Amino acid sequence: ETRIEARAAVIDKAGYKHFMAKEIHEQPVVFTEALGRYAPGAAPVFPEALDFTRFDRIVLVACGTGYYSCLTAKYWFEQVAGLPCEVDVASEFRYREPPVAPRTLALFVSQSGETADTLAALRYMRGRADLVASLVNVGTSSIARESDVALAIMAGVEVSVASTKAYVNQLGVLALLALHAAGQRGVMTPAELSAEIEALRHLPEQMRHVLALEPRIAAIATRLAEAKSALFLGRGVMYATALEAALKLKELSYIHAEAYASGELKHGPIALIDRSLPVLVFAPHDALFDKTVSNMQEVMARGGQVTLVTDAAGAATASEGTAAVLTLPSAGRLTAPMLYAIPAQLLAYHTAIAKGTDVDQPRNLAKSVTVE
Amino acid sequence: ETRIEARAAVIDKAGYKHFMAKEIHEQPVVFTEALGRYAPGAAPVFPEALDFTRFDRIVLVACGTGYYSCLTAKYWFEQVAGLPCEVDVASEFRYREPPVAPRTLALFVSQSGETADTLAALRYMRGRADLVASLVNVGTSSIARESDVALAIMAGVEVSVASTKAYVNQLGVLALLALHAAGQRGVMTPAELSAEIEALRHLPEQMRHVLALEPRIAAIATRLAEAKSALFLGRGVMYATALEAALKLKELSYIHAEAYASGELKHGPIALIDRSLPVLVFAPHDALFDKTVSNMQEVMARGGQVTLVTDAAGAATASEGTAAVLTLPSAGRLTAPMLYAIPAQLLAYHTAIAKGTDVDQPRNLAKSVTVE
Repeated sequence: ETRIEARAAVIDKAGYKHFMAKEIHEQPVVFTEALGRYAPGAAPVFPEALDFTRFDRIVLVACGTGYYSCLTAKYWFEQVAGLPCEVDVASEFRYREPPVAPRTLALFVSQSGETADTLAALRYMRGRADLVASLVNVGTSSIARESDVALAIMAGVEVSVASTKAYVNQLGVLALLALHAAGQRGVMTPAELSAEIEALRHLPEQMRHVLALEPRIAAIATRLAEAKSALFLGRGVMYATALEAALKLKELSYIHAEAYASGELKHGPIALIDRSLPVLVFAPHDALFDKTVSNMQEVMARGGQVTLVTDAAGAATASEGTAAVLTLPSAGRLTAPMLYAIPAQLLAYHTAIAKGTDVDQPRNLAKSVTVE
Repeated sequence: ETRIEARAAVIDKAGYKHFMAKEIHEQPVVFTEALGRYAPGAAPVFPEALDFTRFDRIVLVACGTGYYSCLTAKYWFEQVAGLPCEVDVASEFRYREPPVAPRTLALFVSQSGETADTLAALRYMRGRADLVASLVNVGTSSIARESDVALAIMAGVEVSVASTKAYVNQLGVLALLALHAAGQRGVMTPAELSAEIEALRHLPEQMRHVLALEPRIAAIATRLAEAKSALFLGRGVMYATALEAALKLKELSYIHAEAYASGELKHGPIALIDRSLPVLVFAPHDALFDKTVSNMQEVMARGGQVTLVTDAAGAATASEGTAAVLTLPSAGRLTAPMLYAIPAQLLAYHTAIAKGTDVDQPRNLAKSVTVE
């Protein structure tokens, strides 16, 4: 931590009010750098040791925001590469001491590479997993050094305590890893891989389009700042996005935001819904869209104030009755989590501004959790 | 649902103010019935098809409260029987369409046996899993009929929308299943099995001891009723207990209660802590106790008002600085989740009484979610 603070002093905000704003706006650039490193051509390029024909199963472990990037990756590895995937938070995983099946790849995600629980989980898996790999932003970190393969996420120094660009770059590298696995396992053809990578190459441009929506997002945040509580809903990869959005709002604005998989709403949390509870729904117009909209309509029927984050096709069919709609460029299952992360970040940022909380150093939090 | 309502009309409250109170107090009796059915002697007794030497992996799927009983069971199957276990909510599982490894047991948990998403998940696993088993309270239900093996949880008719005795009996049958697996796989000796079952036989008596703490719990609830939000913390099996406790409070009192694995607190949610936020900590004096207490002390250092639910050994060492301590009989990893569920239920019940909400029929909720 001392080291990170020392660096912060010599890195400036480049004209932004806060490091967080600067880091949010850097995302198209740092994402391009990660793409250049791991997908310079038509196929992903990773160290040889990451041979996915050797693995029958992946175990992903992290804390906080890193855990949500792992949760997103579970959907990708399973749906894109047909590879079963388990995800756990490090503090639970390490003490559960779970049995490990043969042919398991263990993958750890940590921005700082020094997260104490994640490092302990990594040490538990050494000698148990076939390969120990990690995604880190700090290449000289303990987690990087103790991994068989350490992949730098290329996000650059992240000063703001609330992670933004590191999260999006974790997602980018995990998406490329899932594609790599799909290629090696013969689940996708080279042409299909190339098309997916091409879509990832358009992402920085789409991110810039979303960043340009900032005034609209700030207006939504002004209303959100009045709430004591909020619910975030999504299905599939958007469930993980909802979790990350809720965490970001908690961290920055101290509003009690909680995320649910939309389908779980009826099994209890819908009792919370009344006119005072803002509900944010992340729903690109994909195969799960109608299901999520149906849950959203139940919320509205009970007086819930819904902000729908969707694309043009979604906005065209499901805006009726919502309090606000935010329309993003259309995105696929591999690109939507990175794209939808941006309104989540900007919403938390502008809510914090509206409330006057300390954006770059929220109360009670440390950038890198090096104690248990 | 029509059927359930019809039954409710002919079942009386046996002198209790609400069905929920009656059902909470029935738990020692219905738990004894489940034990009599699945552990009449020194070893668990289950249908022959449940041969755990045939399985390398268990996939557990449910919704709401049933999901939390599955989450508890994951710890048991992995730690007690050394059997890897995956858990998912049905609405996510069914649409993720995950790859299924050979030698997989699929296990579905549903009180009504009619939960739409769980039934769809079950149908997805037919032909993919080696065996499809279910735990239901209604033996004539769709989920029971479509399973290879259906285990009745013997809880009797549950009328209150918020599940109590069905949850505890789901846990009881799952604990016995984990012991059965441990015995069949040679992980536990017959003498060890017998000792664990003996501990389960003492549980109804311990439950009565906890039920006798009701006036103390009602006093804690009076203060809780003033809160807008609350956090529930636990590690290991107590993480699932914290999740269930938070859900129960949400459902009954409309307070925004959320549970976290204690170790995740520092990765964001600790920003929420101030003097107005009650924090409930579930921590028997076990191997994880010191870690949880360390998280609890961080909460108190930031002004958080902590209620610690623990046992005598825990109360003796960690009461300092807490707002309240609730002392339960000492319990092991297999019995604690059933025992600690009772204060969670009574806390939600008495908070609802204090707030004047409709205990047996909370707003917006249905007993059995037969739509998606």
